[in-house]
Amino acid sequence: MSNVFKRTHMCGILNSSNIDESVVLNGWIQKRRNLGGLIFCDVRDKTGIVQVVFDDKIPQELFEKADTLRSEYVVGVKGIVKERQSKNPELPTGDIEVFANDLVIYSEAETPPIYIKDDDNVDDNLRLKYRYLDLRKVKMQKNLTFRHNIAKIAREYFDSQGFTEVETPILIKSTPEGARDYLVPSRVNPGQFYALPQSPQMFKQLLMVGGTDRYIQIAKCFRDEDLRADRQPEFTQIDLEMSFVDEDDVIEIQEGFLKKLMKDVMNVDVVTPFPRIPYSEAMERYGSDKPDTRFSFELKKLNDVVAGCDFKVFTDALEKGGDVRGINIDGGSEKFSRKDIDKLQDAAKHYGAKGLVWMRIGEEEITSSVSKFFNQDQLKEIAAVFEAKAGDLILIVSDKAKVVFDSLGFLRREIAGRLNLLDDTQYNFLWVVDFPLFEQDEETNSYSAMHHPFTSPKMEDLHLLDTDPGKVRAKAYDIVLNGVELGGGSIRIHDKDLQAKMFELLGVSDEDANEKFGFLLEAFRYGTPPHGGLAYGLDRLVMLLSWQHSIREVIAFPKNQAAQCMVCEAPAPVEKTQLEELGINIK
Amino acid sequence: MSNVFKRTHMCGILNSSNIDESVVLNGWIQKRRNLGGLIFCDVRDKTGIVQVVFDDKIPQELFEKADTLRSEYVVGVKGIVKERQSKNPELPTGDIEVFANDLVIYSEAETPPIYIKDDDNVDDNLRLKYRYLDLRKVKMQKNLTFRHNIAKIAREYFDSQGFTEVETPILIKSTPEGARDYLVPSRVNPGQFYALPQSPQMFKQLLMVGGTDRYIQIAKCFRDEDLRADRQPEFTQIDLEMSFVDEDDVIEIQEGFLKKLMKDVMNVDVVTPFPRIPYSEAMERYGSDKPDTRFSFELKKLNDVVAGCDFKVFTDALEKGGDVRGINIDGGSEKFSRKDIDKLQDAAKHYGAKGLVWMRIGEEEITSSVSKFFNQDQLKEIAAVFEAKAGDLILIVSDKAKVVFDSLGFLRREIAGRLNLLDDTQYNFLWVVDFPLFEQDEETNSYSAMHHPFTSPKMEDLHLLDTDPGKVRAKAYDIVLNGVELGGGSIRIHDKDLQAKMFELLGVSDEDANEKFGFLLEAFRYGTPPHGGLAYGLDRLVMLLSWQHSIREVIAFPKNQAAQCMVCEAPAPVEKTQLEELGINIK
Repeated sequence: MSNVFKRTHMCGILNSSNIDESVVLNGWIQKRRNLGGLIFCDVRDKTGIVQVVFDDKIPQELFEKADTLRSEYVVGVKGIVKERQSKNPELPTGDIEVFANDLVIYSEAETPPIYIKDDDNVDDNLRLKYRYLDLRKVKMQKNLTFRHNIAKIAREYFDSQGFTEVETPILIKSTPEGARDYLVPSRVNPGQFYALPQSPQMFKQLLMVGGTDRYIQIAKCFRDEDLRADRQPEFTQIDLEMSFVDEDDVIEIQEGFLKKLMKDVMNVDVVTPFPRIPYSEAMERYGSDKPDTRFSFELKKLNDVVAGCDFKVFTDALEKGGDVRGINIDGGSEKFSRKDIDKLQDAAKHYGAKGLVWMRIGEEEITSSVSKFFNQDQLKEIAAVFEAKAGDLILIVSDKAKVVFDSLGFLRREIAGRLNLLDDTQYNFLWVVDFPLFEQDEETNSYSAMHHPFTSPKMEDLHLLDTDPGKVRAKAYDIVLNGVELGGGSIRIHDKDLQAKMFELLGVSDEDANEKFGFLLEAFRYGTPPHGGLAYGLDRLVMLLSWQHSIREVIAFPKNQAAQCMVCEAPAPVEKTQLEELGINIK
Repeated sequence: MSNVFKRTHMCGILNSSNIDESVVLNGWIQKRRNLGGLIFCDVRDKTGIVQVVFDDKIPQELFEKADTLRSEYVVGVKGIVKERQSKNPELPTGDIEVFANDLVIYSEAETPPIYIKDDDNVDDNLRLKYRYLDLRKVKMQKNLTFRHNIAKIAREYFDSQGFTEVETPILIKSTPEGARDYLVPSRVNPGQFYALPQSPQMFKQLLMVGGTDRYIQIAKCFRDEDLRADRQPEFTQIDLEMSFVDEDDVIEIQEGFLKKLMKDVMNVDVVTPFPRIPYSEAMERYGSDKPDTRFSFELKKLNDVVAGCDFKVFTDALEKGGDVRGINIDGGSEKFSRKDIDKLQDAAKHYGAKGLVWMRIGEEEITSSVSKFFNQDQLKEIAAVFEAKAGDLILIVSDKAKVVFDSLGFLRREIAGRLNLLDDTQYNFLWVVDFPLFEQDEETNSYSAMHHPFTSPKMEDLHLLDTDPGKVRAKAYDIVLNGVELGGGSIRIHDKDLQAKMFELLGVSDEDANEKFGFLLEAFRYGTPPHGGLAYGLDRLVMLLSWQHSIREVIAFPKNQAAQCMVCEAPAPVEKTQLEELGINIK
């Protein structure tokens, strides 16, 4: 005894091929107009909207029921598809309408606090609070479906390549390394805590030790960090690991995946293998370890050509071991006013740049913010480094290397954006490889792992471990699309002696290493295959391929900037008894 | 520059069709024997074991390297497949062996603390501590692959039926309802806590309110309960929800899934639709809401036939409103000695039974533990209820209904087990339907929801809500296979007035309802489709179909009975600074 109409079609797919068919639809009333003897309703489901007509040929009772309909009422409708008199070319279903002959109202609705319209420009917090209404937008449902499809293709592809999806635990041990852990007090073991995983890193390595050979998991990860920019306390990775592989094997199989993904979800053919750019080259040419290669404006080093010049800012930077580098904006001279350049300079200051030197290449003469210190010949010599021509604009930054790279890396992308050079239909995948194994702290000179302490050094650099660790390159790789890092990984150390050496160089005592990673080190004693892997940020991947501006658009129930779930109002105070059972107090 | 051999074949799949092929294998040394001029190694990967031979035709250096191999060394081997002289019919690869011509040792190994053998009978705690070694067993890898395949089929099937996989949040609000929540202190919002979800119940309902229409998620769930029996603090559900459906629609689509699953992973054709047994009938006939119907021994009610008898135990039970019921073991009389029956009685006491009355049906006479109180005619009248024949054994329990059902339900399954009637090749799926909406507390007489407070009553029972709530049946259904509950679900209430009524009957104040479920109740104000769903326990489903005795056999890294991860040693004490940041103290 069901009063639920059995649906025959989704609303958004009806078209002129369905004319004269009897259909049963279920959905929400988008809007209703009563034009005297005719009632028009737009009925919406996740696929879109279709117009339903109640006319005076139906029983009076039914017509009156239809007249009670209001926005967001939930209904079932039976009817016949007819060609529409006044077609609506902007609606996919605009060629037809459905003449209703039966109606059930499943649920009435109060006036919703936000409009259910794709282009509604409502406050983000209101959208998050009423997420269940926000999700009714066809656009939002498309985003969820798109995410589903990407996860599905990932699973299918890696399954076809012999990967096994294995669930690793969520309640694990806290390892105070990297970001801050979320903790979970244990009731059974009072005074002790679980941590939520920042990634399944150690467990996936244990799976390799355990013979799983090829592992995939679409895994929830957790980081209790301040949510600047577009981050979430819980996020999702496509997490992968393989045994008996080196860098080329991992990269090759990922290229197969990305090629298939691009074909299946975007209908775009990308060419593999993707370019591989060593980290040092990426920095030198693009000022970034995730270069966007859809446009040029490559960085050039000017240290030699400005050495010994009269401009103290440059020579000071060089004396301190810094750099002088610049980019040339092709035809940029007339596109950027003095004021525009000032704004760019202000923006570059966020990256540490103290100033921005500019040079405009004229037909005859070069004008510059530093023409007091350089004669025309000197300026031309600089311009020659860029092979600049009349109409170009050169921007130069001098400082320590990191500041120069960061600010010029930012500027080239910012300028490309302003010049509309970021072609959304172009997909420039590339690998950044040969990352340094260590980062050196500027103040203490101590080394830390650039990726994580299990990353393998390149075998050909092993001899540098003792003499010049800063020069040792890692078997690490990041996959970059149009200037966004989609994922990264490495070949891991599988030799326990080399691992011990790494901890020594990182200044991690045996005791500390044992405390934090003891179980992995112990596992390595009983026969470890060479292994390596990679993880993609699923949220970011979905966001990028669906041209969304925030990962919140592709997460069903995201947290806000204060790490709160506006829908269920978490976090929240809990009952005293709950804390008593856990043996903890709030300070 | 890689020293990793590129594998051509997995070890366990080589057979006589590969003879004379050059192969490259990667794996672990299972064992090694040096028979003078010949070294035999068993090399293992996740697919199985193959014999590799190093003979005296290979360079001395290679032979010597092979002689250093020990158990669990990790190696790459190149060689030629040859027919084996002395075939080993017990090994899938036993017809062949690989004559090695190259060898790389990736990693040496200390003697492992547990044997890597499927049938090794080592202590469970040792297996859990060295799980990465335990997982090397071919059997354990098969379990992981089997689980992967079940999840894959679930995803594929529901995708083909228009379901979208949506990730619901892990950091949510604590709702002190049902089991105990795991809590997560918030650093950004001091004094407040997240909870880990016991299920995505409310979020999947919000997705329906949000128009997602059909949702699936293979979801991690968490319950901080004492781990009696075979439970885990974190476990996995195949979680489903559909809009615009009633019971039949949900059941039909699940039967499609289970039929496909059984065909794809077990190669078994199951007949759909599955039988549907109302809860009351399941209890009356099988003494269980998850009946195993592979054997009979159905319960019979004896209230009428023993009414007014001389046996005070029976009449007392009846007077107190209890029942007298029994089961008949076909031909059981000579299979169960007096001592056996005593043991059954002892076991039944765990279910509250105070005693067990037996009757042996002889050719002429019936003997019984209560023959003092019943004459032969009376005993024959009882036997007639069961249509018992000579050689049968009748067992009778009298008590309040729950005790009678529980103990007889236990006995019929226990006895079927002893009589080897549990046929592992028979798959009796059935639905238990028409559950009571409420459970009544014996002492306080107050009602609680049998499933959860969002479960819809049957429309035809609505009129009983006020007059006789105990009689109201729910639109709830459990799927049962061979006496094990695989999953369950319900149609939900989508009418906010009916939901308010439910809370009233459950004695939940408006304030409480708002505090706990306010966001769902608010969501229901803006247009809610009729919806319902179901969740399968994935761990149990995998366990059952792979004939494992514990869900720990099908979870990669399970916790032990003290909720500890023996591998990573979680939970554990954390740094003081971590607690300070969270604003909590340990008592």
